Amino acid sequence: MRYIGVDIGGMSIKAGLTDEKGNILLKKSIVTRATEPGENIVADIAALVKDVAAVGGLAVADIDGVGLGSPGSVDDAAGVIRYSCNINFRKTPVVELLREALGIDNVKISNDANCAALGETLFGAGRGAGNSVTVTLGTGVGTGIVVDGKLLTGNCSAGAEGGHVQLGLGGPLCGCGKRGHFEAYASTTALLRQTEDAMKKHPESALNTVAKERGFDGKTVFIAAKQGDKVAKRVLNRYIYYVGVGLVSFANVFYPEVFIIGGGISKEGDTLIVPLQKFVSENVYGAEYNPPIKVVAATLGNDAGIIGAAALAMK
Amino acid sequence: MRYIGVDIGGMSIKAGLTDEKGNILLKKSIVTRATEPGENIVADIAALVKDVAAVGGLAVADIDGVGLGSPGSVDDAAGVIRYSCNINFRKTPVVELLREALGIDNVKISNDANCAALGETLFGAGRGAGNSVTVTLGTGVGTGIVVDGKLLTGNCSAGAEGGHVQLGLGGPLCGCGKRGHFEAYASTTALLRQTEDAMKKHPESALNTVAKERGFDGKTVFIAAKQGDKVAKRVLNRYIYYVGVGLVSFANVFYPEVFIIGGGISKEGDTLIVPLQKFVSENVYGAEYNPPIKVVAATLGNDAGIIGAAALAMK
Repeated sequence: MRYIGVDIGGMSIKAGLTDEKGNILLKKSIVTRATEPGENIVADIAALVKDVAAVGGLAVADIDGVGLGSPGSVDDAAGVIRYSCNINFRKTPVVELLREALGIDNVKISNDANCAALGETLFGAGRGAGNSVTVTLGTGVGTGIVVDGKLLTGNCSAGAEGGHVQLGLGGPLCGCGKRGHFEAYASTTALLRQTEDAMKKHPESALNTVAKERGFDGKTVFIAAKQGDKVAKRVLNRYIYYVGVGLVSFANVFYPEVFIIGGGISKEGDTLIVPLQKFVSENVYGAEYNPPIKVVAATLGNDAGIIGAAALAMK
Repeated sequence: MRYIGVDIGGMSIKAGLTDEKGNILLKKSIVTRATEPGENIVADIAALVKDVAAVGGLAVADIDGVGLGSPGSVDDAAGVIRYSCNINFRKTPVVELLREALGIDNVKISNDANCAALGETLFGAGRGAGNSVTVTLGTGVGTGIVVDGKLLTGNCSAGAEGGHVQLGLGGPLCGCGKRGHFEAYASTTALLRQTEDAMKKHPESALNTVAKERGFDGKTVFIAAKQGDKVAKRVLNRYIYYVGVGLVSFANVFYPEVFIIGGGISKEGDTLIVPLQKFVSENVYGAEYNPPIKVVAATLGNDAGIIGAAALAMK
């Protein structure tokens, strides 16, 4: 079986030919003409898909399915990108347009975070799990939820916005304008703010030395904590607590087999994953009667989007 | 089509004969021999099912399916009641035992809160909705989640414990021993505590007069608020805010078509439902792009359990 997964981004559109096991056989990419009318961008995608098939030695008709992941608000069932901030999709019927352009019926679409979650669950860190919650810690907090091997996206695919569940009443301002959401505590943006606050309050902390030596970023707190700095350790422990509380909320509702932690920060590995695993195991409701929930770091990196998009079209 | 739904409770076990539209044609009940070995309780249930069929003029073999709802920790897929606080079920393979006793293959089981949610969604307040979250405000807060017409219960049915999502860090003590869960803010137990606190702080409030006149209970704050008492209104508004924040968290993850509010307090009707509807509509993530979410009061009352249990066995 051969599938093509397309990962639409604001800068580039990447497409990969995959087999049914989620292996990428070849990849190509084009620049996103983000300000063109949506129909023209779809035409670019159709050309890219044909190109990938051709390079793979296949006619488009030989492809078993095409899946797409897009940023923004996507109605999976309708096959429509309702809106995207950085790309000029406005109620664009992408699936219908691509079916016509490619002459293939099996074309599917979902939000890019959902695709990444599906890819990681089926073929990456969650391989073998039917139920997972993928939490991507980045500028914001994205979540992708897989139930019995399928994405849960809510009515008109408007859900799975787990960055916007409440964590603390009041609490810090969230990107969405409300206060106290998970994202406002657990994004890397939030971690930077938490680190900066600690640096100001504790000029003696190694956080300041590390930031001066190599520039201030998301790694500052991890490096200073590894050097044994108490303030950095406190910031990190509190951040891990915030992430953990969010995971436990999801656990008590979804009770997944596995949490997959994505985003650049997941590369910190055990420093992040081991205490999160401990927190979830100790705090999930009914832990004594129920199977354990694993916490793991994402493994597919930037390929998760292509692989997950291809997976949309499988079965 | 004919189904039998069984609603297992600590005091009584109720069974109803239903058609495929969720109409109850007849009901019978027996006393729960809660301290007997689980196998004996299952034998009682088998006898009750046979009795209901007979009164309905049917042989057990004519019944299209039997569904059961039980309190406690139930593994739906395995058909096992792992544990129940008030009834002596301990890893009791209820489905297997009933299949043998009745000679019927189509026997299903789930947690009683899940059954009530399924009943309300398919045949009650949510009729026509494929996606719903039912929130039962009682001594605790129970949730039942329906996705595409099916219950979402998590791995080994250990999830759907929406009373135990975080609402406020720290926060009041929850029945489960943790702090700040939705249940600790939004159960009627919590409302009673919030009302009592206000009565102590404001001896001049009509809350105290109302409580003296007709006894203190969950209605006290509603009655005093209707009399125009400012303190009561404040308590009620804050309680509605707490419930609303929880609903919005669920909305941002599940984006259901409808929230169904159950529990005795849902009988307060518009006083509770109208402001909750407003809060959800104003605060759900992406409200401007997405379909509205309805908030309604449960309508099936005590029959929800029987109807939902029967619904487990349908299709």
